[in-house]
Amino acid sequence: MTSMSPRDSAREGREQPGARLASDGAGAADASSQADRTARITWSLLAEPSDDAAHSTCTVHGVREGLEILARGDLDAVEHALRVLPVHDPSAPRAQRTDRRAAAAAALSRWRERDGRIDAQAALDRAVGLGMRVIVPGDDQWPTGLEDLGPAAPFCLWAHGPGDPGRLADDRAIAMVGSRASTPYGEDCASSMAAQLAAEGSTVLSGGAYGIDAAAHRGALAAGGPTIAVLAGGLDRLYPRGNDQLLRAIRERHVLLSEAPPGTAPTRWRFLARNRVIAALARVVVVVEAAWRSGALSTARHAGTLEPPRTVAAVPGPITSAASAGCHRLVRDAQAVLVTEAQEIRELLPGSAPAGDSSFAQQDELDFLDPADRRVLDAVPPRSRITIDRLASEVGRRESEVMAALGRLDALGHVSITGQRVGRR
Amino acid sequence: MTSMSPRDSAREGREQPGARLASDGAGAADASSQADRTARITWSLLAEPSDDAAHSTCTVHGVREGLEILARGDLDAVEHALRVLPVHDPSAPRAQRTDRRAAAAAALSRWRERDGRIDAQAALDRAVGLGMRVIVPGDDQWPTGLEDLGPAAPFCLWAHGPGDPGRLADDRAIAMVGSRASTPYGEDCASSMAAQLAAEGSTVLSGGAYGIDAAAHRGALAAGGPTIAVLAGGLDRLYPRGNDQLLRAIRERHVLLSEAPPGTAPTRWRFLARNRVIAALARVVVVVEAAWRSGALSTARHAGTLEPPRTVAAVPGPITSAASAGCHRLVRDAQAVLVTEAQEIRELLPGSAPAGDSSFAQQDELDFLDPADRRVLDAVPPRSRITIDRLASEVGRRESEVMAALGRLDALGHVSITGQRVGRR
Repeated sequence: MTSMSPRDSAREGREQPGARLASDGAGAADASSQADRTARITWSLLAEPSDDAAHSTCTVHGVREGLEILARGDLDAVEHALRVLPVHDPSAPRAQRTDRRAAAAAALSRWRERDGRIDAQAALDRAVGLGMRVIVPGDDQWPTGLEDLGPAAPFCLWAHGPGDPGRLADDRAIAMVGSRASTPYGEDCASSMAAQLAAEGSTVLSGGAYGIDAAAHRGALAAGGPTIAVLAGGLDRLYPRGNDQLLRAIRERHVLLSEAPPGTAPTRWRFLARNRVIAALARVVVVVEAAWRSGALSTARHAGTLEPPRTVAAVPGPITSAASAGCHRLVRDAQAVLVTEAQEIRELLPGSAPAGDSSFAQQDELDFLDPADRRVLDAVPPRSRITIDRLASEVGRRESEVMAALGRLDALGHVSITGQRVGRR
Repeated sequence: MTSMSPRDSAREGREQPGARLASDGAGAADASSQADRTARITWSLLAEPSDDAAHSTCTVHGVREGLEILARGDLDAVEHALRVLPVHDPSAPRAQRTDRRAAAAAALSRWRERDGRIDAQAALDRAVGLGMRVIVPGDDQWPTGLEDLGPAAPFCLWAHGPGDPGRLADDRAIAMVGSRASTPYGEDCASSMAAQLAAEGSTVLSGGAYGIDAAAHRGALAAGGPTIAVLAGGLDRLYPRGNDQLLRAIRERHVLLSEAPPGTAPTRWRFLARNRVIAALARVVVVVEAAWRSGALSTARHAGTLEPPRTVAAVPGPITSAASAGCHRLVRDAQAVLVTEAQEIRELLPGSAPAGDSSFAQQDELDFLDPADRRVLDAVPPRSRITIDRLASEVGRRESEVMAALGRLDALGHVSITGQRVGRR
């Protein structure tokens, strides 16, 4: 299943899985927190990321009690959880939101079905053997932004690589997502913006997919900045295959994340659920190119439903490009701020002051002229000289007014006056 | 000064200037309205379009009394007008807005200077001889939208061509403006949108300039729809020269307008003042391409200051294109609505219902599937068959649930079930 090179294996062979597990988190793990960790790993094997009932049950009753509920088939407990804590996950099946008793029964049944086939310890051992680790709430490496998902927060994160997600997913973290079917234009935008943002210390988060995702990761890597790929499937499968080199580079220098355990196939609904994690790990979500209907738009939607919501930004493109239609739609629907450069994205980060004056500084110095003086200057022909009375007549002002204006323009180096004639300098 | 071909002269020779002047407007002009018309023509020769003091004086005292005030050098009357009716024209010189007495004196002085050199009747006769006409408030052909400029409304409009501005500048009129330094992308956008809008009965207004203006006019002409060019200089000078053919075509089939009398040079400040007329004649102002600092942005600014304000729309483009920077700026500053097609522009016209459902109709029918069913479908491999128990395990649902989903998917024609295996259809 894994496609690691001998070199990767050698590198990972240096790690000490046991010590690593114990030392992850705030320090020596006590028995209770260790049991909690095991329960979370179990739940990540039992339930899909978008399993409302699993998240509600574990939030209301706790992850360990959730396993007890499963073990004794406690329908009431699951139904109770669904009643007090309905999870508003837009990707959740509609049926679960309507018939609570049936949903609870279905949930118990599907967990039970997987329960017979999973072995949390074996899965963990195998992952650790591959060089991965598991991060759970309370660990130093647990990104606090995930808490904003509320009950929909992942049970745990599977991580692979030296990067510390808790530190990298900070107040400057930016998600950059977009179409797999991207254009060279969109890829250039993504990689150059990602490079600038990463160079200034922002972690660039994306999904590791073809197109915009890959361009964003590549831009960040090229700038030597941090980047995190959040995958939809298990970290033992670097998907898509064509991005194998890229994902290995991220794994080597930064970190790959997934809420799905190794062995999980990257399927469509897992991509959609994964997008909520990308949104939660970032402070701003930038959509670079997205077709009218695009998975990237689901990331933007998730960003808006988080509490506090993440700011969504969209990069415009030619209206003739289907790859930009989703971005334009987000802006038209006021779901995204239009951005045209890295600086405008940075300004959306919490605590950033808009650099409103930068554009002002770009203005032509002629803009600072009094409009009346500007008119006089405009009426002076560029390549010949004009008499002052003719100039006065042309601008419809008195000669004395025009002379005063010419004096100021002369002082600023715009015109030269010789006798009764004036010309440009 | 004029550059008309013999053919143009012949066409215009058919017209009867005298009869035309008398029959313009609501019917037989009485002596009072005829005197008013002459006074307005005189003011259009005396004062620049952006002359605050002239507009205030004429609005407060009337155009004929305004000429009396000038004749007797009545400083108090001008100052009074400036006090009771300050004109908030952003292109007006700053000085005029501060020192009212000095501004009044300067105004009288500059009007007096021109007064000695103009001859309204001669200017009118000459214009009529060229086939032009003058339109003043109260005439049928006076576009009512100009009233929304308040005191800054033009004294009169000089018109050339068979089109009736009063009828053409109606509730569906759309201004399309943009950079002279346009790109092929922007020109394509402008001409194709203009063609669609004109084909559906909207008059496309623009400034006759190179670039976006010309593309908009051409698109409208190509669709056989109405288009008006509002020029900054006199209509005897078809400026810019390179658009001579285009402007002649508009003059032949529709109409050219200017508030400046024949003989007026098109200078920078007249372009800026002209932009307010374009905005006032339209209901929506579309900026197709505009650099960060562009005259087209002044049209957009004017549109926002009108009462009622005109809706401004901006067409996005590549962020790598300087020609789109002004459009992106308008959208970012919430001064313009982002538009990507003619239909979205039409929806901004007064009384238009947004065709919100059109996008919905474009959605994939798969969107209407229950998300749970959609998951099952997604897990069915595209080119092979899968057993139902494997499918149930893959989606993490009970076999009975999966069978129910497959039944629905089968009914909708998405899958085919044979025995215990299922495949895509």
